[in-house]
Amino acid sequence: MSTPLLPQAAATLARAGDAVRVLDQTALPHAEHYATLATLDDAAAAIRSMRVRGAPLIGATAAAGVALAMQADAGDAALAHALDVLARTRPTAVNLHWALARMRKRLTGLAAAERSTAAWDETLSIWAADAACNHAIGGHGLALLTAMAERHGRPLNIMTHCNAGWLATVAWGTALAPVYMAQLQGLRPHVWVSETRPRNQGLLTAWELRRAGVAHTLLADNACGQIMAQGQVDVVIVGADRIAANGDVANKVGTLLKALAAQACGVPFYVAAPRSTIDFACPRGADIPIEKRDAEEVRVVQGMQGACRIAPQDTACANPAFDVTPAALIAGIITEQGVLPPAQLAGARPQS
Amino acid sequence: MSTPLLPQAAATLARAGDAVRVLDQTALPHAEHYATLATLDDAAAAIRSMRVRGAPLIGATAAAGVALAMQADAGDAALAHALDVLARTRPTAVNLHWALARMRKRLTGLAAAERSTAAWDETLSIWAADAACNHAIGGHGLALLTAMAERHGRPLNIMTHCNAGWLATVAWGTALAPVYMAQLQGLRPHVWVSETRPRNQGLLTAWELRRAGVAHTLLADNACGQIMAQGQVDVVIVGADRIAANGDVANKVGTLLKALAAQACGVPFYVAAPRSTIDFACPRGADIPIEKRDAEEVRVVQGMQGACRIAPQDTACANPAFDVTPAALIAGIITEQGVLPPAQLAGARPQS
Repeated sequence: MSTPLLPQAAATLARAGDAVRVLDQTALPHAEHYATLATLDDAAAAIRSMRVRGAPLIGATAAAGVALAMQADAGDAALAHALDVLARTRPTAVNLHWALARMRKRLTGLAAAERSTAAWDETLSIWAADAACNHAIGGHGLALLTAMAERHGRPLNIMTHCNAGWLATVAWGTALAPVYMAQLQGLRPHVWVSETRPRNQGLLTAWELRRAGVAHTLLADNACGQIMAQGQVDVVIVGADRIAANGDVANKVGTLLKALAAQACGVPFYVAAPRSTIDFACPRGADIPIEKRDAEEVRVVQGMQGACRIAPQDTACANPAFDVTPAALIAGIITEQGVLPPAQLAGARPQS
Repeated sequence: MSTPLLPQAAATLARAGDAVRVLDQTALPHAEHYATLATLDDAAAAIRSMRVRGAPLIGATAAAGVALAMQADAGDAALAHALDVLARTRPTAVNLHWALARMRKRLTGLAAAERSTAAWDETLSIWAADAACNHAIGGHGLALLTAMAERHGRPLNIMTHCNAGWLATVAWGTALAPVYMAQLQGLRPHVWVSETRPRNQGLLTAWELRRAGVAHTLLADNACGQIMAQGQVDVVIVGADRIAANGDVANKVGTLLKALAAQACGVPFYVAAPRSTIDFACPRGADIPIEKRDAEEVRVVQGMQGACRIAPQDTACANPAFDVTPAALIAGIITEQGVLPPAQLAGARPQS
C-alpha cells in the first residue's frame, strides 16, 4: 500500500496468541471495550450479538472462528461443524459465506495436523486482502470524489448510512474509505451521518469521523429526505451486505429510503463494497434473505449510560435488519477493481 | 354527530374554570400527566415545548392562549401582543395562524369588556369545529378504507407516520380518525407505526391504538421502505402541518421518505387534514417555512425512565422538524368536505 493506514485503522480485530482480540462494538461509541474470542462459540456469539458487525468484518471474524475451532479439534467433523455454526450466525451478509468457502477450500484436503496452521494462514490472508481491497476501494472512490469536488468548486457534502467505516472491516472501511482518502488529500469533505435506528450504527460513524477529524453532522434517519431536497447533499455512499448478480443491493435497513430520495433529488447514489460482496449465485435482490432481528432492538435504545427502554416489552415490533435497493437507483458500485455499473456486474464474475 | 366519540377522545385539552387543562404529551406515553395553562405565557410555552403538539391541537391551544390573555388584560395592545407571541411559537403548522386569524377577527371590533367572554366563546367554537371536522374526515376516510378492504377481501394494513391521532387534535385525530372508524365498523385494521425519531411520536400513536384495541406493529423509521417493498402495506395515511395551494404537503420529517417508498411500491398515499391546514396564500411547498428544532432532540431520546443521551453534547446535529411531500406523490387529501385530489385544491378555497 502506498498510502499509510490511518492511525485508527486495523483495530477491529487482531490475533493475540491463540485467541483473537476484537473491539466490542456493542459498547461503542460510549465505551471502548475489547473482547477475547478463544473458541468457535465465542466467535459465533460475537457475530450474532453484533460485537463484531459490518459485512467484511463478519467474514474476517468467521474465518478466525474456523481457525479457533481447528486449534481445539481439527478433525473433519469439527471442521464441518465449525463451518455450519458460523454460516448460521447471520443470514444476509454474503462475505460470511465467501470467507467460509475460502476456509473450506483451503482446509478440506489437508491432514488434521496441518489444519490449525493453515487455518490461521488463510485467516490472516483474508484479513490482509480485506484491508487491501478497502484501500483500493478508497482510491477509486477518491477519484470520483475529486472529480465531483472540482465540478462543484467547493468541499463536498457526502451522505452515508449505518457504519461502513473501518469499524465494519479489517481496515479503512468501504463507504468511508473514499472519505478518509479525501480528507488526507485535503478535500475537507463534510459527511451527513444518519442515526441508523434501531441499532444506531450512525453513532459509530460519527465516532470514527470525529477521531479522524472529518467534519460531520448527525441526523435522524427521517431527516435525510429533507436534507437532500434542500440541495445539501452532493453524493450518497453506502456499504453493502450482499449484492445480487443483477446489481440489486441489500444493505442496512433504511438504505432504500435514501436511494429513493437521492433519485428524486438528482443526487448520485453509490455503493462501496469489495467484490466478495457480490453473490453471483443470487440472481435478484428479492432472492436475498433478509435477517429479522429481535423486537427488543426496536423497543430499547443504547444510550451513553446504558440501555434505555422506549416502548413496553409487550409492544409488537417488526425489525428487518436490511432492505434491498434496486440496481436502477444505483449510479455505481465502487469495488477494488474500479467503479462498476450495477447492470454490468456479470463482467466482474470470477473465472474460477 | 351520529357516531359516538371514542371514550378516550377529547382529553387533550379542556376548560377548567379560568384555565385550560392539557394532557402533557412530553410525558406520554410513559406517564399521564396534566398541566394547567393559566396565562398567555403558559399557553405559548406549552406549544413551543410540545407539551401540546399536532397541527390542529396547536391551533386549538393558541385560541385558548388568546382567551387566557384576554382574562388578564383585554386591551388592544394586549390582544396584539397575545396574537404576536402565539404566532411565533412554531413556524410550520398553519392551523396556528388560522386559529389566531379567527380570534383576531372575532375580537378586534369588540369593546375590551366583551373580549374575554367572546374569546372563550370563539375558542370553544374552534374546539368543537375541530372535533366535528375530524369526525367528518374519519367518515370520508372510512369510505375509502371500506372500499379498499372489500377489494383486498381481508383486513387492511395501514401505515402512518408520527402521531395524527386524537392526541394531535381536540378529538378523533386526522390520519387516525378513519382507522378508529374502521375499527368501530369491525374492519379490524392493522396499523404499521413508525417510531418517528427524533421525538418518537410514533410511541404516542402506539399508545393510542393500544387503548382503542387496534392491532398495530411498531417499526424503526428505516424499516418502512422494506415493509412496503414486501407488499405488507395497503395504504399510507398521514396528517399535515401545512398544505400549499398546489397540494404540496409539509408534515413531520420522514413523511417524504414514506411517500417516495409508497410511489415506488405502488401503495396509495393519503393525507388527512382539515381544510384549515390548507394555506392558499402559500403557492408551493418550497414556500413553507420548515422549523429547525434544537439539536439536543437528536442527541437525547426520551425513554420510559427519563431522558437518555445517545450522542455527546458537542456532536453537530441538524434537526429539521418537517419535510415537504410533493403533490404528485399524494393520491388524495382527506378533508371534512371529502377526498380532494391535491392538484385541485383551488376549488376548496373559501369564498370569503
